Amino acid sequence: MKKIPMGDQARVLPMPVAMIGADVKGKPNFMTAAWITRVYSEPPLIGVAINRKHYTWEGIERNNTFSVNFPGADLVQETDYCGLVSGKDADKSALFDVFYGKLETAPMIVQCPLCFECEMVESEFQSSKSLVIGRIIESYSDERFLTDGVLDPGKANPIVLTGPDRRYWTLGEPIADAYRIGKELIKGK
Amino acid sequence: MKKIPMGDQARVLPMPVAMIGADVKGKPNFMTAAWITRVYSEPPLIGVAINRKHYTWEGIERNNTFSVNFPGADLVQETDYCGLVSGKDADKSALFDVFYGKLETAPMIVQCPLCFECEMVESEFQSSKSLVIGRIIESYSDERFLTDGVLDPGKANPIVLTGPDRRYWTLGEPIADAYRIGKELIKGK
Repeated sequence: MKKIPMGDQARVLPMPVAMIGADVKGKPNFMTAAWITRVYSEPPLIGVAINRKHYTWEGIERNNTFSVNFPGADLVQETDYCGLVSGKDADKSALFDVFYGKLETAPMIVQCPLCFECEMVESEFQSSKSLVIGRIIESYSDERFLTDGVLDPGKANPIVLTGPDRRYWTLGEPIADAYRIGKELIKGK
Repeated sequence: MKKIPMGDQARVLPMPVAMIGADVKGKPNFMTAAWITRVYSEPPLIGVAINRKHYTWEGIERNNTFSVNFPGADLVQETDYCGLVSGKDADKSALFDVFYGKLETAPMIVQCPLCFECEMVESEFQSSKSLVIGRIIESYSDERFLTDGVLDPGKANPIVLTGPDRRYWTLGEPIADAYRIGKELIKGK
C-alpha cells in the first residue's frame, strides 16, 4: 500500500455541523460551523473556530456568550444558508424559533435536537486566531429526540460534513458499542 | 415543543474518531481520541484534547510531534482497544503497520484511510488542561480511498462516535452539497 501525500489542508473526517448563535445588535444571529470539539471535561469546555471577521463574533465578544445548535438533517438547507449568508446582509433571526436558557444572550434554535448555551472563557491564543473556548452552562433537547430520557442520535439525525468533497451526510448504522467492542482484543492477548 | 435541560456534560453530535500516534520510549504508540477539530486555516492547525496522564503524552511532549489517524469501520475493534488499554500496560505497536512521513517521530497507521503528521505548536492554555494544538505538516491517504485523486469519504468509511449512548456509527448517505444547497434560500428571499 503506497501512501500518497494529500497536502496540509486536510479536513477532520468527518466533521460535525452546528449553528453558532449570538445576539448581535439586539437580534439573534446564527452562523454555521464545523470546526467544533469538546476540549476539557471538568469544567465542561467546548472549542469552536470562528473567524473574527464574522458578524457573529461581534455578539460573542460583546456578551461573552454563544450557543452551539446541532441541526437534524431536515434543517440541512437552512444550515447551509446560515454558512453562506452573513448577518450583516440578511436577518437570520426569523429562520427559526428561538429560545434562551440560563444565559440571557445566547439564542438557541427550538428546531435543533441538541443545543448548548456557553459562556466564553478564552479567546486569545498564540497559534490559532480563530479559536474560541466556552464553558457549557447547560444543554437542551426535547422529548421527541430522547429514548428513556437520553438523547437518541438515531432520532436526532444529525448532519456531518466531509471535505474536500464538501458534502453533508447523515449517520448510517450503529456498528459497535464504544468502550466495549475492544475488550475482546484484551481477552485475546 | 418543550425544551428539556440535559446537563453540562453534553457531547458534540457526532464526534469523529481517530488514533493519536506518538513515539514513546522508542516505540510507536496509539491512543483513541474523539475530541478533535481543525482550529485554524493558515497555517493549518488541529486541536486535540489529550489528558496529560496518558502514556501518549510522554511521547508528544518529548518529540513535539504527533499524528492523527482516522480509521475505517473495518478497524473499529482495534480503534476501541486503543482507547481502553494504555501503552503503559500493552505494546500497541504491533497492532498496525506503521509508516513515517516528513517528521521522523510521528508514527502513522498504514491501514487508516487518512493520516495527519503534526508538529505541536501550543499546549498551555488558561482554560483547558487537555488541549494540544498542532500544525498539520502533511496528510496521507492511498489510492484505494481516492476517487479522481481526491479522498472519497464513501471509500474511507470513517467511524463516528455519539454520546451519552457511547456508540460507533458509519456514515449514511450524502444528502446535499455544502456551500450550495443553501443558495436556494437566498434566491427565495
